[in-house]
Amino acid sequence: MPQFLTGMEVRNACREGSWTGPTCGLAPGFAQANLVILPADWAFDFLLFCQRNPQPCPLIEVTSPGVWSPALTTPTADLRSDLPGYRVWRHGELVEEPADIHHLWRDDLVSFLIGCSFTFEHALLAAGLPVRHLELNRNVPMFRTNIPCQPGGRFSGPLVVSMRPFQPADAIRAVQVSASFPGSHGAPVHLGFPEQIGIHDIAHPDYGDAVPVHDNELPLFWACGVTPQAVLQQARPPFAITHRPGCMFVTDLAEQRTVG
Amino acid sequence: MPQFLTGMEVRNACREGSWTGPTCGLAPGFAQANLVILPADWAFDFLLFCQRNPQPCPLIEVTSPGVWSPALTTPTADLRSDLPGYRVWRHGELVEEPADIHHLWRDDLVSFLIGCSFTFEHALLAAGLPVRHLELNRNVPMFRTNIPCQPGGRFSGPLVVSMRPFQPADAIRAVQVSASFPGSHGAPVHLGFPEQIGIHDIAHPDYGDAVPVHDNELPLFWACGVTPQAVLQQARPPFAITHRPGCMFVTDLAEQRTVG
Repeated sequence: MPQFLTGMEVRNACREGSWTGPTCGLAPGFAQANLVILPADWAFDFLLFCQRNPQPCPLIEVTSPGVWSPALTTPTADLRSDLPGYRVWRHGELVEEPADIHHLWRDDLVSFLIGCSFTFEHALLAAGLPVRHLELNRNVPMFRTNIPCQPGGRFSGPLVVSMRPFQPADAIRAVQVSASFPGSHGAPVHLGFPEQIGIHDIAHPDYGDAVPVHDNELPLFWACGVTPQAVLQQARPPFAITHRPGCMFVTDLAEQRTVG
Repeated sequence: MPQFLTGMEVRNACREGSWTGPTCGLAPGFAQANLVILPADWAFDFLLFCQRNPQPCPLIEVTSPGVWSPALTTPTADLRSDLPGYRVWRHGELVEEPADIHHLWRDDLVSFLIGCSFTFEHALLAAGLPVRHLELNRNVPMFRTNIPCQPGGRFSGPLVVSMRPFQPADAIRAVQVSASFPGSHGAPVHLGFPEQIGIHDIAHPDYGDAVPVHDNELPLFWACGVTPQAVLQQARPPFAITHRPGCMFVTDLAEQRTVG
């Protein structure tokens, strides 16, 4: 793992093309973000969707049409080059995975930066709580649920959740710790009975990797940043760009719990 | 003061025309909201403005174009009739103050419900903190500051703040209490030195009524829901509707502090 200590170092390495891998573990302490880019005529609907679904879609920043730099949170960044990789979607189909999107940029594109679970996972670890998929060096298991998101314009679909198993006392603490990071999905949406939220086989996630849930453990489910990508595929806008999974935008923001 | 105990009772009285006065003190425990209604072609800009300025503009709900009922928070309400009074704006000028807006409704109108300071004032009182303008039965004093809001599309302008004076120990407590209500403007934006935020005469507010600040007191300043009305007047959209000052929309939501 390279020693990128700041968000800017990660972004510069991406911009120069020297880093194209996942961002997990890079620039510790700097908040990372999911990226969704849409044409302006789809932007109100998506902003409405995010406003109505803050647990899966906690907004960090939304740029004005054509602006490729998130001036409020990371003003030196160029969203066209500063991620390790991108996915380009046309009518809901993945058509390209470029390392740079300068050639695709348009004056009507609006960028949405959405909080990422890395932040609350770091807080769980800092609180001494074991995070199973990290211990096993796997991707987090993710499931489509039977919980509908609140529709926003042309965007709708089920909530996607990530799952982390904990023993009861740790589960209580994990609720408390994650609840103080509303910008990083916040408290779990469910705990204990996967079938109640439409998950019938905990050993076979819809995205990511399976992890074992032991007999003395409860599965905890958090709203997941894959939700906006899933509703995007379902809504089939003519054009969209997202980050490549695991290859997030690293901001200049410190990972910070809510003051209050 | 009539004995309206629930949000629905207030809304029904407004709908029937039997209540046209201010909503302060009505339906205790139910969150109240500022209302801004804009045509769809101005809605993305205003939603962006609110997203970027959550302290003056904490969003409670945003309706889809043409929808006059806030389905997520108060599904039985009709935003065209359920407030005591409205203001109609054309090109930034106040043109009408009707009690009902059925005759003005259009299929392209988007309604924004924005959190209101009544909620954190109730929490201050519940914490035993004296709120000067309530003790004096006056409107809260409000000031335009030299703090620019983050522009959002065609919307920009200075932050408007409300002021409440407290003795030092109470000021500390007031910060703590209000900080746990981010949906109601949250923690103060400034405390102590009005001139640092462009307020040169604390005895002459730009809106509302003056209240005395005693020698052993600090003035505390909170982001204020008048801010969106001020930027609306400055942006001069061809058409807009807001609540009449003090005559808020009473939701079905309980006044609730942030869990976390």
